[in-house]
This record gives sequence, structure tokens and C-alpha cells, in this order.
Amino acid sequence: MRYLNEADIEALAVGAAILGTGGGGNPYIGKLRCLQELRRGRQIPLIGLDELADDACIVSIGGIGAPIVSIEKLEEGNEGLRALRALEAFSGRRVDALIAGEIGGGNALEPILTAAAAGIGVVDGDGMGRAFPEMQMTTFSIYGHRSTPAALADERGNVVLFEHTASEVWFEKLARSTVVAMGGTAVGAEAPMRGVYVKRAAIPGTVTQAIRLGGLVLGANRDHRNAIDLICAEERGIHLMDAKIVDLQRHLRGGFSVGELALEGIDKHAGSRARVAFQNEFLSFERDGVEVCVPDLVVILDVDSGHAITTDVLRYGQRVAVLGLPCHPLLRTPQALAVVGPTAFGLEGVEYRPLAR
Amino acid sequence: MRYLNEADIEALAVGAAILGTGGGGNPYIGKLRCLQELRRGRQIPLIGLDELADDACIVSIGGIGAPIVSIEKLEEGNEGLRALRALEAFSGRRVDALIAGEIGGGNALEPILTAAAAGIGVVDGDGMGRAFPEMQMTTFSIYGHRSTPAALADERGNVVLFEHTASEVWFEKLARSTVVAMGGTAVGAEAPMRGVYVKRAAIPGTVTQAIRLGGLVLGANRDHRNAIDLICAEERGIHLMDAKIVDLQRHLRGGFSVGELALEGIDKHAGSRARVAFQNEFLSFERDGVEVCVPDLVVILDVDSGHAITTDVLRYGQRVAVLGLPCHPLLRTPQALAVVGPTAFGLEGVEYRPLAR
Repeated sequence: MRYLNEADIEALAVGAAILGTGGGGNPYIGKLRCLQELRRGRQIPLIGLDELADDACIVSIGGIGAPIVSIEKLEEGNEGLRALRALEAFSGRRVDALIAGEIGGGNALEPILTAAAAGIGVVDGDGMGRAFPEMQMTTFSIYGHRSTPAALADERGNVVLFEHTASEVWFEKLARSTVVAMGGTAVGAEAPMRGVYVKRAAIPGTVTQAIRLGGLVLGANRDHRNAIDLICAEERGIHLMDAKIVDLQRHLRGGFSVGELALEGIDKHAGSRARVAFQNEFLSFERDGVEVCVPDLVVILDVDSGHAITTDVLRYGQRVAVLGLPCHPLLRTPQALAVVGPTAFGLEGVEYRPLAR
Repeated sequence: MRYLNEADIEALAVGAAILGTGGGGNPYIGKLRCLQELRRGRQIPLIGLDELADDACIVSIGGIGAPIVSIEKLEEGNEGLRALRALEAFSGRRVDALIAGEIGGGNALEPILTAAAAGIGVVDGDGMGRAFPEMQMTTFSIYGHRSTPAALADERGNVVLFEHTASEVWFEKLARSTVVAMGGTAVGAEAPMRGVYVKRAAIPGTVTQAIRLGGLVLGANRDHRNAIDLICAEERGIHLMDAKIVDLQRHLRGGFSVGELALEGIDKHAGSRARVAFQNEFLSFERDGVEVCVPDLVVILDVDSGHAITTDVLRYGQRVAVLGLPCHPLLRTPQALAVVGPTAFGLEGVEYRPLAR
């Protein structure tokens, strides 16, 4: 166990955005709020998976909704705490620590903010090792945990409890429609898990991973080194393409940012063209056929700084580097691929060929 | 207190459909289910408002959704009981009796079915004295009761609890979007009320009223008397028009059946034309200007039998009698008109002129 400091938060925001593969919400505001908490003197313990007691009570927490909405619709600040308290009251259990449902994007910071407010710790791990658009897409759900009872809170004080749902997909469906009615974003806390399960089902060490990754990028920019190369080396990824965004279709459908990017190669990739599909997160990179797809990470970075570009700030003319990073083995089992593989996202005829790790 | 019998249920289904002003759900299946409960030997006490203990715990219960959906999407049967039990568990209180949120249509039968299953009684009264499309439109809400915590259950076993909402309209908005995600219909149970409040805020005696009204119609048909005249006399209503439906626009929007009827007078009304707007329920009758509008009841009956025609079975060519019935004074206060008057339904420029009682 160690306490998170300001440098951690700065790096985490950068690294989480990279692992967010375009989604998980923009981490900028969450970062500012976390720094504010630290400056107020809050201490936020980061707890390793191996430090968790088997009977510890762990709750996964995160923002839900379209990333593009969260830019204009700011959180009031206590959404996560209200969701947590509602869940504690309903289940009659006191929660020992929080864990991110997804480490990607702003959702890396949501449990930290709520943990700071509640005076508890954050687990070094998450349920995705990246970001995914739907709530049944966590390793927690995939390996058998039921997300209900779960609580959803918005900035107006509305709190909705999903006591029981017929399936994890029904939970996603009902929660999503509630989030849409709440204006497009909300914070959710899901059914308590025991430490022993979290140790088995969580993607381990992803808070530390994101901090390390962000630190590399910040360091590279300070030292005028190439951040892209460092990221690829650190994550054993492939530098797929440097390109300019030449077309962008993005719309809000069913509470998701859905769309497609067209890319035209630049520099050593001049002359080649590629497409990237997204549903909150980048789903596939297609050049001569699909080269990388979910659950592996399609990451789009600013070609110069190596900072991630989230789907909500994509625009025509941006010069980007596209990377493919291998996902964690927990996302590659047949059980996992049924939920987070290309078919689950409606990518017709696409076969998942894992990137080498 | 008395026990409901089979004749009561037969008459209640007919009378509730009339008070439903086109909505509240078709009572046919609820009637069959109630009769089945009675034949199984269940006893269902009907409790007068004046018999309620001041500290009795009363819960309002009813189906929510578009009437047209409930024709094809049948209830599994225990939705109401699941919603009630979830609410009891959450609030830590045992419910003494149920009351209809709306007496109109199938929703008159929903609390009876759930009361039979739970072994408790039903209060002789309701929150509308008719049917209205939205959940904040009960006298319970209008006179200050907060509907949350409330529970919503569907046929798959999904149970959603609205722990707290920013307002009654937010409750309607969040619950409605959940109902839409549940497939268009669900059963809801709202926050417990004390007997002393129910005595003040409920429309009194409406179960008995619906039974009496239905009995009149059934009797008139048996005796070849004119049911329309009897209904008007009983309810101090106006026989506005006999007509043929010459146009019908009906669509499902935001979980509601929304539309408009065009009528062409027949018999002694030949040559005149009128329009009736609806949102689940009939909202206004317009001939030379709006002659009757919410909260007064615009009732459409089969011109021969006097049986109500709900919005879900309206069709071109039907020969109907249109009646205007005065609503209860509890719906005519300034507080009530702000919620259930013409403006609340977006009837622009329509002024409410109460029918004589």
C-alpha cells in the first residue's frame, strides 16, 4: 500500500487516457478534482491486489454515458459518494475499498475521487485494463459477478437502484436508458465483491501501469524524446500508422458516441489509407483488412506529444499516431471474447487475431 | 369493509374502462386474473377511506406504459408483488393495504391482483378518479406526497428502485425511460403513505363508483335499455355527440400512445364534425372550439352497448357516443390544474371550463 501523490495523478490522467482507447471520458476535470482533494490534505491509499483481505468488501465505480456529453455536463461532485452510500445502505455492508470498472480515461479517476470523499482506499487494478462502452464488459461480469444491486446517481440528486436484473445485459440496457434520461451521464456503483473474487477477476496493477505510462509520456515531452516509441516499448505495442484525420463521422446514438474515422498516412506512411470505427472507444483499425480489433487496444495519440486523443475531441486535420496494444489475457478467453470480442460489437466478419504480447 | 365478489369484478372492469377515458390499460386480462384469484378462494377486502387507521401504511400500485403495448406483452403475473416486496424491504415497513394510482382501465384491477397475492386489502378510492398518462398526475403527488422510494418490476424479474428523485416530474421521466427499456410496460409501487394522508388526498369511493357504473351498463344491456343515458344520469355527464370515427392517427412516442381522432356526427348529430386528442387518455373534445378538456373526462363508448372503447382498440368506422363527465373537485384546484389541466398536456390556448357537477 502506498498513498497517491500529485505526480501520480498528473501521470495517471495521461496514462489512463492512452489506455482509454478514445473513451472512458476525458480525464481532465477528474484530474483537477483529484489534485484539489490532495491539496485539501486527503490521503488516498492505493492497495495492491495481493494486499486485499479475502473477505474485503470492494465496489466498482465509474461514470457512465457518452464521453462527448461529459465535456459540457459537468459532475456536481458528490455523484459517486451518493451512489456508494445508497449501495451501502441497501446492501447493509460497509465498503472497504473501491476499484475502477475501467482504467481507461476519466473513469480511472472516478473511484479515486469517491474514495477520497469516503475516506477509503483504491485497488490497483480494474475490470477492463482499458475502456469499453458497456457495463457488462468488465472482467467482473464476465467471470461471474452479478452487477446488481447497483446504484446510479446524477448531479440533480436522482438516485436509482437496480435491485435485480434478469442478466448483465439487462442491467446495461436499463442503466443506459436511465443515464440517457438523466441527460447522458451519471455515476454508477455496482454490487459489492469479495476480495477473493477481485484478486481472481480484476486486471491487476492497472493504476500503476497507467501512472507509469503517463510518466513516460510526460518525461518524453520534457526531454524531447519520442513518446510514441517509448509507449510501444513499454506496452509491447505496434506503431501502426502516422496519419491525418481526413474524415470524421460522429453521432450520439442510444447514449453512445458512435462513428468512424478515415485516416490518410503521412510521413513514412504517405499514400496509405485506413479506417477506425468507434463506440465511445476505438473498436478496430482497418487498412488492408482489419489489422487490430477489440479486445486489443486501438490507441490514437497526438503524433508529436504522444498524448491520447479521446473520441470527444477528434477533429478533421489532426495528425495522429495509431498504435495497437495487446490486451490482458483475461480478455482473451472464450468467455471474454463472447462479451468483448469483435462479434459483441457487431463487427461483421471480423475474426479476432490477438496481437503478440 | 366488504369482500369483493365475482359480480363486483365483472362490473368493475366495465366501469373502470369508462372512467379510464380511453387509457389506464385494457381491463380484460386483469379481470380474468381477478376472477381466477376469487375462484381459488382468495378473499379481497375493500376498505372504505373512513375505515383506514391514521397510521395505516398504504401503497399506490399500478401498471405503467402504453396501453397498446399491454395487449401483446402480457404480464407474467407477479410483477406487482415483486414491486411491493422490494418497496417493503427497502422502506423496512409492512404495507397494510393497496390503493389504485388510477381507477381508470386495467389499473383498477392491478392493486386488487397484488392485494390478493399479498393477502391484504384494497382501499375504496384512487389518485385520479379517472386515468391520466403520467405518474405525477395523481392527487397523492399533487397534494404533497413524494412518490419515491418507488419500485418498478417487469415480467423478466428486473426490479428497479427509484430511491430519490429531484422532483415528481423527474420520477416520471426516469421511471418512464425504464419502462420503455423494459419493453413498454411494467408495474410500479410508490412510496408508502399514511392513512391520514390518503383520507385527505385520495379521490374517495371510486372502486364502488366504477362497480356501480359497470353494473348500470351490464344491466342496461341485459334489459335492452339505453346505457348511455343511464351513465350520463349517474355521473351528471353530457352526451356530447354520436359519431363515426372517420380518421385515426395513433403512434407510440416516448412510451405513450399519442394521437387524434376525427369524428363525423351520426343520427341527430349528422353533419357536425369534431376532433378528440389523446395521450394514452382522451384529452379534449373539440367541435366549435374545445367543449370538454382535462381534467374533466372525455369518454368514448360504443354507441349501442355503452361499453368503453380504449385508445388501443379504436379503429376507423366505429360508431361511438362521446360523453363529457365532470371530474372530482380535488382535480379542479389551482394546484391540481397546474399538473392535470390543459396546459400541462400542451393543449395550447385551451382554457379549462369545468363541466357542471
